[in-house]
Amino acid sequence: MEPPTIGIIGGMGPQAGLDLAAKVIAETNAARDQEHLPMALLSYSHKIGDRSAYVFGEITKNPGFAIASVARTLAGLGVRVAGIPCNSAHAPEIFNALTSSLKDVNIRILHLIQETIRYTQEALPGITQIGCLSTLSVHRLGLYQSAVERAGLTPIMPSNEIAEHVVHRAIFDPTFGIKAKSAPVTPQAREMVLSAVRTCCDLGAEAVILGCTELPLAVPHMPDVTLIDPARALARALIRESSPQKLAPL
Amino acid sequence: MEPPTIGIIGGMGPQAGLDLAAKVIAETNAARDQEHLPMALLSYSHKIGDRSAYVFGEITKNPGFAIASVARTLAGLGVRVAGIPCNSAHAPEIFNALTSSLKDVNIRILHLIQETIRYTQEALPGITQIGCLSTLSVHRLGLYQSAVERAGLTPIMPSNEIAEHVVHRAIFDPTFGIKAKSAPVTPQAREMVLSAVRTCCDLGAEAVILGCTELPLAVPHMPDVTLIDPARALARALIRESSPQKLAPL
Repeated sequence: MEPPTIGIIGGMGPQAGLDLAAKVIAETNAARDQEHLPMALLSYSHKIGDRSAYVFGEITKNPGFAIASVARTLAGLGVRVAGIPCNSAHAPEIFNALTSSLKDVNIRILHLIQETIRYTQEALPGITQIGCLSTLSVHRLGLYQSAVERAGLTPIMPSNEIAEHVVHRAIFDPTFGIKAKSAPVTPQAREMVLSAVRTCCDLGAEAVILGCTELPLAVPHMPDVTLIDPARALARALIRESSPQKLAPL
Repeated sequence: MEPPTIGIIGGMGPQAGLDLAAKVIAETNAARDQEHLPMALLSYSHKIGDRSAYVFGEITKNPGFAIASVARTLAGLGVRVAGIPCNSAHAPEIFNALTSSLKDVNIRILHLIQETIRYTQEALPGITQIGCLSTLSVHRLGLYQSAVERAGLTPIMPSNEIAEHVVHRAIFDPTFGIKAKSAPVTPQAREMVLSAVRTCCDLGAEAVILGCTELPLAVPHMPDVTLIDPARALARALIRESSPQKLAPL
């Protein structure tokens, strides 16, 4: 029997789609090409409006409907489980529009933020104080904060000042930000992300969620801090839900 | 009007598909997510037999037919131009089986090796001595050698000894090879690739084609040697043939 195909709704941004696909490959037990899991990645950036702009009321068209149309195309390819590597797309207004317009479609969209919390509980049992860094839209909506709370853990949030002028700026600044310069990330952006992680630790965080796909590009590892990468959590969840026997050990 | 979707027949190996997709993104003129080109990547490794094994007569089923079935699926998504980031898949026996079984399908498969030569002539006019490094199957078939000759240029080939015991081994050795350890590449594999490039230069090469998707992972840049990356050439050709106005300058 053929293994089920993993779906990725990419393009938000395009690099984040590839990053999730790379993590699916890295988390799969496979020694040869032929042992890897089938994967379909549709990177249809041009169809999907800016998620943060919608959350902030700057555009009125809900991007959830365009995301749903990509999911429908994936379902047509036989995909039954898919993921969206974009934190802002998991804002309830967008994610609910998506799931409600997929009611009649045989596909499940795994939830990036819920899977990150599940991964945290499985991979880091006993840790309760979780730092949450993200873009400003995800921060203001409290997406990670409320998910951590619902899991009975304690979110450690940076101040609004740090969320806006340190984390968000490190991602979006047009001259030195990670979106503008990612290969390599500028020392200035890297320092800003490191300082935000340290602030969470000073406030008591035992591990820190890097809740924006750009953040792990700036700080893939820190010797003395446990970092949680939502894309890795989602990659593992996609394998778990489609071919669990292929999931590499933690 | 919607821009045409770029197709990638991936999974040979899975990382090479992502590498080509990353180069399409990098070579596209786009400042925002929404300005990127639509791209569909099907990574169906499990369906496609080993290309080198077929070329060497170790398996009898021509992988060209499985590659064609993926191309047909891409055509069903509206893709009219696609690429295959695998040098061995361009062995004439495989590529001809592919194109002949796509006769009734409205999709064009760009040719990785021909596009690499075209890129070399456009990007490096005046250079005539071209080093050609590759896996052993591509080397033995002379795929780059004959394509360089047909373009009126002079191929500079490593000896069979170096092709097998240096280049091929740097890629495939199970303990230190690039396929086994790519993040990061081991110093031993990197040194072997560097020495093969230097050998080509000593033989008179003015530029060196890294004709295997693993080789640029080991040696992305050299300060004093012009390296040619076929995946970059194919990425640019895919943009040129679908949305030429979006192609970034060389």
